[in-house]
Amino acid sequence: MFDEVTLQLNADPLILSALREDITSEDVSTNCILPGPVQGEVELICKQDGIICGLQVFARVFELLDARTETELFVSDGDPVCSGQTAARLHGDIRVLLSGERTALNYLQRMSGIATYTRNVSKLLDGTGIRLLDTRKTTPNNRIFEKYAVCTGGGHNHRYNLSDGVLLKDNHIAAAGGVANAVRMAKEYAPFVRKIEIEVETLAMAKEAVAAGADIIMLDNMTHGQMKEAIAMIDGRAEVEISGNVTKETIGELTDLGVDYISSGALTHSAPILDLSLKNLHAV
Amino acid sequence: MFDEVTLQLNADPLILSALREDITSEDVSTNCILPGPVQGEVELICKQDGIICGLQVFARVFELLDARTETELFVSDGDPVCSGQTAARLHGDIRVLLSGERTALNYLQRMSGIATYTRNVSKLLDGTGIRLLDTRKTTPNNRIFEKYAVCTGGGHNHRYNLSDGVLLKDNHIAAAGGVANAVRMAKEYAPFVRKIEIEVETLAMAKEAVAAGADIIMLDNMTHGQMKEAIAMIDGRAEVEISGNVTKETIGELTDLGVDYISSGALTHSAPILDLSLKNLHAV
Amino acid sequence: MFDEVTLQLNADPLILSALREDITSEDVSTNCILPGPVQGEVELICKQDGIICGLQVFARVFELLDARTETELFVSDGDPVCSGQTAARLHGDIRVLLSGERTALNYLQRMSGIATYTRNVSKLLDGTGIRLLDTRKTTPNNRIFEKYAVCTGGGHNHRYNLSDGVLLKDNHIAAAGGVANAVRMAKEYAPFVRKIEIEVETLAMAKEAVAAGADIIMLDNMTHGQMKEAIAMIDGRAEVEISGNVTKETIGELTDLGVDYISSGALTHSAPILDLSLKNLHAV
Amino acid sequence: MFDEVTLQLNADPLILSALREDITSEDVSTNCILPGPVQGEVELICKQDGIICGLQVFARVFELLDARTETELFVSDGDPVCSGQTAARLHGDIRVLLSGERTALNYLQRMSGIATYTRNVSKLLDGTGIRLLDTRKTTPNNRIFEKYAVCTGGGHNHRYNLSDGVLLKDNHIAAAGGVANAVRMAKEYAPFVRKIEIEVETLAMAKEAVAAGADIIMLDNMTHGQMKEAIAMIDGRAEVEISGNVTKETIGELTDLGVDYISSGALTHSAPILDLSLKNLHAV
Amino acid sequence: MFDEVTLQLNADPLILSALREDITSEDVSTNCILPGPVQGEVELICKQDGIICGLQVFARVFELLDARTETELFVSDGDPVCSGQTAARLHGDIRVLLSGERTALNYLQRMSGIATYTRNVSKLLDGTGIRLLDTRKTTPNNRIFEKYAVCTGGGHNHRYNLSDGVLLKDNHIAAAGGVANAVRMAKEYAPFVRKIEIEVETLAMAKEAVAAGADIIMLDNMTHGQMKEAIAMIDGRAEVEISGNVTKETIGELTDLGVDYISSGALTHSAPILDLSLKNLHAV
Amino acid sequence: MFDEVTLQLNADPLILSALREDITSEDVSTNCILPGPVQGEVELICKQDGIICGLQVFARVFELLDARTETELFVSDGDPVCSGQTAARLHGDIRVLLSGERTALNYLQRMSGIATYTRNVSKLLDGTGIRLLDTRKTTPNNRIFEKYAVCTGGGHNHRYNLSDGVLLKDNHIAAAGGVANAVRMAKEYAPFVRKIEIEVETLAMAKEAVAAGADIIMLDNMTHGQMKEAIAMIDGRAEVEISGNVTKETIGELTDLGVDYISSGALTHSAPILDLSLKNLHAV
Repeated sequence: MFDEVTLQLNADPLILSALREDITSEDVSTNCILPGPVQGEVELICKQDGIICGLQVFARVFELLDARTETELFVSDGDPVCSGQTAARLHGDIRVLLSGERTALNYLQRMSGIATYTRNVSKLLDGTGIRLLDTRKTTPNNRIFEKYAVCTGGGHNHRYNLSDGVLLKDNHIAAAGGVANAVRMAKEYAPFVRKIEIEVETLAMAKEAVAAGADIIMLDNMTHGQMKEAIAMIDGRAEVEISGNVTKETIGELTDLGVDYISSGALTHSAPILDLSLKNLHAV
Repeated sequence: MFDEVTLQLNADPLILSALREDITSEDVSTNCILPGPVQGEVELICKQDGIICGLQVFARVFELLDARTETELFVSDGDPVCSGQTAARLHGDIRVLLSGERTALNYLQRMSGIATYTRNVSKLLDGTGIRLLDTRKTTPNNRIFEKYAVCTGGGHNHRYNLSDGVLLKDNHIAAAGGVANAVRMAKEYAPFVRKIEIEVETLAMAKEAVAAGADIIMLDNMTHGQMKEAIAMIDGRAEVEISGNVTKETIGELTDLGVDYISSGALTHSAPILDLSLKNLHAV
Repeated sequence: MFDEVTLQLNADPLILSALREDITSEDVSTNCILPGPVQGEVELICKQDGIICGLQVFARVFELLDARTETELFVSDGDPVCSGQTAARLHGDIRVLLSGERTALNYLQRMSGIATYTRNVSKLLDGTGIRLLDTRKTTPNNRIFEKYAVCTGGGHNHRYNLSDGVLLKDNHIAAAGGVANAVRMAKEYAPFVRKIEIEVETLAMAKEAVAAGADIIMLDNMTHGQMKEAIAMIDGRAEVEISGNVTKETIGELTDLGVDYISSGALTHSAPILDLSLKNLHAV
Repeated sequence: MFDEVTLQLNADPLILSALREDITSEDVSTNCILPGPVQGEVELICKQDGIICGLQVFARVFELLDARTETELFVSDGDPVCSGQTAARLHGDIRVLLSGERTALNYLQRMSGIATYTRNVSKLLDGTGIRLLDTRKTTPNNRIFEKYAVCTGGGHNHRYNLSDGVLLKDNHIAAAGGVANAVRMAKEYAPFVRKIEIEVETLAMAKEAVAAGADIIMLDNMTHGQMKEAIAMIDGRAEVEISGNVTKETIGELTDLGVDYISSGALTHSAPILDLSLKNLHAV
Repeated sequence: MFDEVTLQLNADPLILSALREDITSEDVSTNCILPGPVQGEVELICKQDGIICGLQVFARVFELLDARTETELFVSDGDPVCSGQTAARLHGDIRVLLSGERTALNYLQRMSGIATYTRNVSKLLDGTGIRLLDTRKTTPNNRIFEKYAVCTGGGHNHRYNLSDGVLLKDNHIAAAGGVANAVRMAKEYAPFVRKIEIEVETLAMAKEAVAAGADIIMLDNMTHGQMKEAIAMIDGRAEVEISGNVTKETIGELTDLGVDYISSGALTHSAPILDLSLKNLHAV
Repeated sequence: MFDEVTLQLNADPLILSALREDITSEDVSTNCILPGPVQGEVELICKQDGIICGLQVFARVFELLDARTETELFVSDGDPVCSGQTAARLHGDIRVLLSGERTALNYLQRMSGIATYTRNVSKLLDGTGIRLLDTRKTTPNNRIFEKYAVCTGGGHNHRYNLSDGVLLKDNHIAAAGGVANAVRMAKEYAPFVRKIEIEVETLAMAKEAVAAGADIIMLDNMTHGQMKEAIAMIDGRAEVEISGNVTKETIGELTDLGVDYISSGALTHSAPILDLSLKNLHAV
């Protein structure tokens, strides 16, 4: 779960914006039928097996529409759920349940999809000591939800954004005139609480990075053999991250490398949703 | 392309919000290396075959960071692109190109992914006269981009949100006390420019909907045979939409039904991204 | 009443903005006199006969300033009120009652003015089967309140805004190269849930509109005789709307035409307010 | 005209909000017909005699949609216009001209209506030395435009809002325990640059106000005779304002009183609009 | 204390913005240690002698993070406090107490610093009848807090901003072509509830200002002798304000002048903070 | 200078908010005198010796009011300036120069004050190899400006906010059950790009922190002797920061300790402003 502070300061404005995207004046269909409040209940039903994630956001959508709406949860974020399982029950004004349904599910399905996919990938790293990382390849205006879902699925978060982590890529290195210069300039400029990470493509660059005192070295576009050699050379003097088109299908080839981290953009940019729906709405 | 009005009024605030999600104080890595502006160029390279979509949003990200950035486009939204193809070239301050890269690609990859998937599905309807529709199962705060991508891929848009279309579902019908009542209440309440759509699950409900004067009837959870029978019964007196877990894999079974519309949530909720990247950055 | 969802998502931000227009740092006059909270009551008194409308917004103004303020309503939106009648009683901190008074009344007086004027016009259509429609000629940033007031007064709403309805006017028709083209292009482009309305000025255009399958035909700038002829020609194949400088004074000439709708911008742009005030403030 | 600073800081956010009220995703009708930009012109035609006001806001609506739109003005704010007169010509993308039309006219018609009504009322004060004042009875979120229109029509502005002027009304006086106390407390509390105005209903209260050193005394609910007596008593020791249901019809009875100010809520809350429209749109 | 209306309408948005400045995604340190809520208490301890100010804002920071947080106050704004004194005790979720600590103290320390400095300066005016005024030299986006702190320290507020007071400075006078013109133009243009203040540098200008009917005359850059002469000449026909680099060190030279007001920018732009901290956090 | 991206995304919204704090409807004084634009110039004059900082923000204030305003700079951020020196000349509409003056100077004076104070403190560290750090004790909604000013003055930035750095304080340690636990939990939870900093008060705690693998150890509330001992014990295995009421007066006692960093809240919370003003306004 998000802590209350993050939820209110950072998630709520996005959730409200999403609700206003879906309701620009009123929910016409609901208001046609229900001129006033009617207390009711509806169930959240899983239609696929997977890892549930985002229940707090799901509940928050309805609370932001009407603070009296109550959500009874039968599972918690990170729990496996099965097709057919009832995950939660909502109590409140039926009009509110109908108006919030789609936005709530849009969040929950996407977050659960990411958690499910991440769990499937991270399981392949069980016992290796390697941590699975996400990237900044998130859906615009959904990063806070998607990075949370990665954690729920057993992954770990890389830097949150461009302001809170230093990652020197090929273009930075070129502009700086080489690896050593780039690391030196970063150590000079960046707030001292930042670790300095640098992306290298050759063993020579990796050596230069170690010598320059990089905290983290990302191996990019290297063959399995090159990576092996580089990791041996680094020998614990920096943390090592492997990156580049890592998916559920390809990660297996990397597990013997003994690195600290493997990062995968696919966790957030290409996970299919987990199918969930609201069913059995009835007045009470 | 979005028209200028939509871009500025409705898309820009979301794009700016996405940029502020990624840059809360500064792009530390870039500022480490580049203390001042350096004019440069970078190329947008396709790394997969697909349909490109979102080039205007891609360019806009950089313009919003620095109005002097220029984007030279070699393809247009909706064009097929091949792996290896150069789709565009950006000219501007290298710092701006680096700082906007991820947000611009996050939009472009996702929109192109949806356009590509939609094109693949809609091709299966070629010659049938059936229109492929999207749904409201979009990513929160990305609807305007995702619905545009569906059109680019050859699909059509269903209602935009809860305020601009009437769709009476099972829960509305139950609350209204039946199909006829629901349609009557909607005709009474909704602005008269709205068509009234209603979701039915049986032939009997479909008959009642036709009699009540529904403009559009959505057949939900029916067997192929039931749908056939319902469509014959409706006989053009209402438009017909088919819905329910329609994907590239399943749509083939529906093409012989002679309906007006098939809608698919998968277009927006489960399309994988199209891989694109910025390469060959250099000062000029 | 607005449903809770519309009130909170769509009305509240406007009400708060109006309050911040009136209070940029503090209510100096009130704070001069009352350094701390004092519980009190005040009555809402009608100073003219009319139709009351906007009581929920009136109450909301005070709630947004202080959630503990309570409003006791003696009438409901749409009720006729008489000069001298007590319509409501507010209970709360006198400072809040004083600070919110003007903004609350500015909403209530304007909404009640529109409801009153609309009721007077719509009464002239009693028994004719014609529906009275509003237009988009609303006060900027007040549409949600003004369209609601029209409904309260017995009118009906035309489209809400440019995004949720299609109305092809003379300029669109000219740009499209004629009525038939315009309707065809709209059917191709607009989301399929939109009805297509077109404005015509001659019988020939009306014929072309019917042939092209327009859903609604608006007769504009026609003589009574021309309208009669056009309506006979259309003969139920499209809905018919009459528009153009319709006021309380002029609507009588149109009631024998047997059309579906008459729209009037005057409902929202020129209704005088209904005079109301807060009286008998006293501590309790 | 607004100065550039006020326009950008204080008017623009309201104009943008009004545009987003009218265009939540796109102008569907226009986009149906015009897939790309087409340069054109359209004329602003007066359909009633009156005082034009708000031309800058009118032009700004289009500029905010597309900075390239140009407005050629043939009259200035405050000029009398006649039915049939061409007041301005817009040049720009026809799509932008169509999309901004209604919002631009909604501002211009309302502002011109207020200016026209104010001019008609203020003319009745010509030669009397009395200044006509507005009130805070403005339309929510339109005060900056409406107060400007009052000035354009020859009126003057009372305080802008609750934060920038002190006006002690009956309820403040009651809470303070009398006129003298209220004035004393205001002098103690309010920023010293504020004049202290107090509303009195009897000669005795007026005397107390003068003695307490009120800067402005508002005579409320007094007969003509009582006002005469009070004004004689005050004898220039404070400025005098008369208020209370002042309209074009009633102001004549007050012109012999020799007061400094007469205020009228009707200027902003009940002026009918001035009819204006865009005509002769054509491509160029 | 701020009244509830000012707090919610005008202070809350700034406080929330400050919290979002400090927490862009989450409080990582706290969330490392405390995965869920833990009820606790913490004390607000004074580490210097001074005047406490801003306790309501301090408490509000925590309430905005979690409405259940409670603040027990042992002192009130304006009270003198001593080093070592416990000023308040907070009760709530320890995570919230930790996350809000810095923002709450940043407000409280600054406001208390201004109140303390103002008290020290205003004491030097005791018995002189001169009022100490602040200026617009406040920290951007902190004016509402800093002007409040000046009042708490025994000072008074000059105008709030450029919109609610008229102060004609040298540049205005030059542009107007002299003092008399400037005052006349201001009387013509400014809302009549504004007092007209003008800054003069010579006796001749002061005479012209009195003759023109200025309400307040500010003596700027004059010697003690010149001021004395000017004040004698003005002789109560206008209020007099003295300004210009007034600090705790320099104000003593001005107290014999018998003016109404002395203003000092130093109150808000150069007061050092009052040191305060949260101590003795413990679970309960 | 800020890079263009940071300026527009992160600084501009704050600057605009500050301008709207000072101008809620219009600059009445300026508009009294100048009904239309008048081109002019004004000079920025230094009235104290110090380090200038914030010239870009100063210029931006005027640009945001009117994009045509031009600023000619004669010095750069970080340059020493002397009393009497002309630092810049503004060209533009005199009305804009007058309306923006106070807000522009409020930023510039405060930023220059911080830069000046920081320079004075950091000079005391010359030759010691110790870096001077700021803290989060910044003015609410001014952090981006104040941290920039610290860098300009020769200081370095500690973490930007609670989301981008880990600093475990006494309360975190207590909640975690000791130093070792706290560090372990942080390493488990925090994004791996974060360095882990921990605050210790005894030699024993420092030992535990080193053993647990803390990246940075902050020595708090220790005597000079204790710090010496701790630093010797740490012996380069972690970076060391000293903190606690460090000012220009006290920092001298710490320079012999051979630490990496000394942090000082006083840099941002108690630096007096640098006096600057706009002079010699004239039309051109």
